[in-house]
Amino acid sequence: MQFMASLAINYQHILTASQRIKGHALVTPLLESPLLNQQLGGRVLFKAESLQHTGSFKFRGAFNKLSKLADANQLTGVVAYSSGNHAQGVAAAAAYFGVPATIIMPSDAPKIKIENTKALGAKVVLYQRHKEDRDAIGQQLSQAHNLTLIPPFNDTDIIAGQGTTGLEIAYQLEALNLIPDQAIGPIGGGGLMSGSAIALRHHFSDISLWGAEPQGYDDAARSIIAGTIIGNDHSPASICDAIVTRKVGALTFPILHKYLAGAKTVNDQHVLAAMATCMQQLKLVVEPGGCVGLAAILNHSLAVADKTTVVILSGGNVDPAMLDLALAL
Amino acid sequence: MQFMASLAINYQHILTASQRIKGHALVTPLLESPLLNQQLGGRVLFKAESLQHTGSFKFRGAFNKLSKLADANQLTGVVAYSSGNHAQGVAAAAAYFGVPATIIMPSDAPKIKIENTKALGAKVVLYQRHKEDRDAIGQQLSQAHNLTLIPPFNDTDIIAGQGTTGLEIAYQLEALNLIPDQAIGPIGGGGLMSGSAIALRHHFSDISLWGAEPQGYDDAARSIIAGTIIGNDHSPASICDAIVTRKVGALTFPILHKYLAGAKTVNDQHVLAAMATCMQQLKLVVEPGGCVGLAAILNHSLAVADKTTVVILSGGNVDPAMLDLALAL
Repeated sequence: MQFMASLAINYQHILTASQRIKGHALVTPLLESPLLNQQLGGRVLFKAESLQHTGSFKFRGAFNKLSKLADANQLTGVVAYSSGNHAQGVAAAAAYFGVPATIIMPSDAPKIKIENTKALGAKVVLYQRHKEDRDAIGQQLSQAHNLTLIPPFNDTDIIAGQGTTGLEIAYQLEALNLIPDQAIGPIGGGGLMSGSAIALRHHFSDISLWGAEPQGYDDAARSIIAGTIIGNDHSPASICDAIVTRKVGALTFPILHKYLAGAKTVNDQHVLAAMATCMQQLKLVVEPGGCVGLAAILNHSLAVADKTTVVILSGGNVDPAMLDLALAL
Repeated sequence: MQFMASLAINYQHILTASQRIKGHALVTPLLESPLLNQQLGGRVLFKAESLQHTGSFKFRGAFNKLSKLADANQLTGVVAYSSGNHAQGVAAAAAYFGVPATIIMPSDAPKIKIENTKALGAKVVLYQRHKEDRDAIGQQLSQAHNLTLIPPFNDTDIIAGQGTTGLEIAYQLEALNLIPDQAIGPIGGGGLMSGSAIALRHHFSDISLWGAEPQGYDDAARSIIAGTIIGNDHSPASICDAIVTRKVGALTFPILHKYLAGAKTVNDQHVLAAMATCMQQLKLVVEPGGCVGLAAILNHSLAVADKTTVVILSGGNVDPAMLDLALAL
């Protein structure tokens, strides 16, 4: 109970965020394939956040955050650092509220993410992922130009916004009269899964909740076991650009620790196989970092036989060459 | 008025079909991309029937038809001929009602369509597209095994079922407070567009309605102009396997003639470009025949600048090699 009191957000925050983003963010579909269910031996439902505005769930948190700032007359301009999905979410929300956005992106981000962020009207500043400190660049730009820094995950309004994904899943499952056994989704900084975990557990008290991470970036898995935040010391190559974060947030970790059973690890081959399955069976284009949850099912890390499982597909911003790789499997 | 009285179905039939398929067919999302809108200079909303059960709108008509037969105690087994989407729709509906299905498919149908039809429990009989008569095979099987033939489009219950696509679009547009200027979608036999046209015109009296067809299969365009059904004399190669029909139906044509402004023609290159746009901008896997409407916009046959346009993306059953071709553009 002591620990509960210290959590950054609760179910009510997510309900409030849900009212705020209503009519702005899409209610994305919860999809399933009878043939895929047959192959997997269980019922697996996919929350297609790849179809969300700007191609990922990030629009939810960004819109919630900027909307609150606008209501408080504190929205003049924003700056954010992001590998590309938070970038587009913030850029689209800033465009909606008519304020300038500057986004700091790694120079090796997928081309589609850099181009779309620019097309949404944001100013893009590229940095070298392994040489420069994006936090420092963000702080500097924020102070120099009086811009509000919009953090990618370690922020109560961002977490509450991303949590509306889980809330929508709960409503959709209830409409189908389904009680899920478990849910799994990507963890980078932990915003999506911490917020969604609160909403899902509120509706389904017995649900088992899991994160999924790329090999070499299993910090959430290790942190949940250790009971304290542990970072990734190295930065190995991974195709999952959206979720190769160094560590989870100070606000997201206590929530993940409380609600998640753990996190599963997947390698690039599992991820490509999951992308191919999304294209062939679900007719969805999902980016590498977006389908790590399905990858954990395909590599048998998460057992789904005779269970009802929800998989969050978090984004769909992927260059053609990567889709080719997946289709070549 | 004379002509109206002769139409096979009306708005009420579509409402009834809608009640019948409710909870069985998915309410597929109506999606748009701000960036694509920006590029096209107008607002374009996409009805993603590629995400429908069995990967195409065909499930709607098949379920409606089989459900009515079941209620009348006339459902013992079914036979259908199809290039693959109607096949899967009928197979899935037959599986739901627990009756056997035999599907006659061309031997050159996409592998994914043949395999999925079998996986759904149907018996598949392959025939040579240019040598054998699928109608004759269907009649023979129907009589020999006491199976009800489920026509692909020339049937009132099938048309009403497919028309629920247009009905859903109308509801979704109304929820967005949008009045569309125009809508476009694929025409093979005309079931989808005839049914949807009735529903859309009922809700939006000024909407302009268009079909889209592959080069060499522009029979609907010519038939609408001529005021009588004209078939395609030749069978040129086309990647749009789902809609390379010889002519529209005796029941669908009068509806198409009454409601449609005409039909646009697209070639394979336009279609591949549309598939690439679907993957990159909408995050959707759409099959060649499914995105001829978007192809007609991309090749400037249908002007969308400063207009609100609805495009029906009718299916997503496509083999990886075809997706590769589109991504290579």
